[in-house]
Amino acid sequence: MNQAVVLLSGGLDSTTTLAIAREQGFAAYCLSIDYGQRHRVELQCAQRIAEKLGAVEHRILRLDLRAIGGSALTDTIDVPKDRSESAISHGIPVTYVPARNTILLAVALGYAEVVGAFDLFIGANVLDYSGYPDCRPEFLECFERLANLATKAGVEGLGKFRVHAPLLKRTKAEIIREGVRLGVDYSLTLSCYDPDDQWRACGRCDSCLLRKKGFLEAGVPDPTIYRE
Amino acid sequence: MNQAVVLLSGGLDSTTTLAIAREQGFAAYCLSIDYGQRHRVELQCAQRIAEKLGAVEHRILRLDLRAIGGSALTDTIDVPKDRSESAISHGIPVTYVPARNTILLAVALGYAEVVGAFDLFIGANVLDYSGYPDCRPEFLECFERLANLATKAGVEGLGKFRVHAPLLKRTKAEIIREGVRLGVDYSLTLSCYDPDDQWRACGRCDSCLLRKKGFLEAGVPDPTIYRE
Repeated sequence: MNQAVVLLSGGLDSTTTLAIAREQGFAAYCLSIDYGQRHRVELQCAQRIAEKLGAVEHRILRLDLRAIGGSALTDTIDVPKDRSESAISHGIPVTYVPARNTILLAVALGYAEVVGAFDLFIGANVLDYSGYPDCRPEFLECFERLANLATKAGVEGLGKFRVHAPLLKRTKAEIIREGVRLGVDYSLTLSCYDPDDQWRACGRCDSCLLRKKGFLEAGVPDPTIYRE
Repeated sequence: MNQAVVLLSGGLDSTTTLAIAREQGFAAYCLSIDYGQRHRVELQCAQRIAEKLGAVEHRILRLDLRAIGGSALTDTIDVPKDRSESAISHGIPVTYVPARNTILLAVALGYAEVVGAFDLFIGANVLDYSGYPDCRPEFLECFERLANLATKAGVEGLGKFRVHAPLLKRTKAEIIREGVRLGVDYSLTLSCYDPDDQWRACGRCDSCLLRKKGFLEAGVPDPTIYRE
């Protein structure tokens, strides 16, 4: 069985990505980054999800991005609420974390080299947040090239690194339908940027709004517990 | 004055790189990563060096790479000692940290985006450790391309990211002579992979051996304090 490193935040997209990696027959090494995000309870969700979906292991790596700041997710900037669909899908929001996917993939690459994996899975999606530069196909292709130049394993020709982003061009509703087909229990996942300490979602941040709409369009009951 | 992010480990190469960035007129934002390395006293060296060389600020970011392991610098693997010059310069040593420069540059990129810098300085050198894949020019060029695809600042055309590796093809002796010309006080720097708690170098790891030889060939007195 081939190994794969799966970036797992504990949200809907990364969980579905893990389910897809498992269906494709990969032994999954899950990696979550504790980057000082507001919504850190998602890390506990990630742990339960990794177990439930039969991952080989789940590692949480601390990387305190608050030391460099610059995002509503790591800073004291307010998380925007109740934005319209067009506001969400245009421009780069304050929840953008500078160079986040570059950093996540870089760490995933190091982990992959340690466990002997050549396949990296990331739940990047280009539709929901058209403004995130590091969710675009050209970014992911460039990272794949970089991975093969950057590593001992790549240079020694032991294998070829591949970056898999199976959700890249799917709508939230399509992602949810795919997850349901694969038996994902979405009640375990947390998408909210601003949950309370009982893991209840705010229901009003961009991430909650997209998630709600996704369940509605997919015709699947939304198992999320909202606090209001 | 243009801003630059300078990756500063506290060693000889990164210190010289900072001096070069300063001479080129950049306002330096120094970044050190506490990745759980054995030789963590180098982080304190970095702080003193940043001050001495007039950096705007110095940030230390914690990223505990011990969570993924795989290197003598972060693991319990022994640091090799007393190796011959040809053993040092061939193959990839156990002190290789998986994907290290990819990770360092990724974090530097995030920091650059926050402070509005487009220039990243790294003390990578291709001669000393011919085996490190992520010190090669093609790797650095690929990262530069990635940086412009990955970021809000790159996509919005606010500027073009550049990766500077001014020491890439210089010998250790050339680096030391350049540093001396720029007034670098090398007694502040620490290169050893296995220093004691009084910051004294072992004198026998690959890094110490290369450093010693560099001072000898440069005809510059070696200010390093060795413990044996």
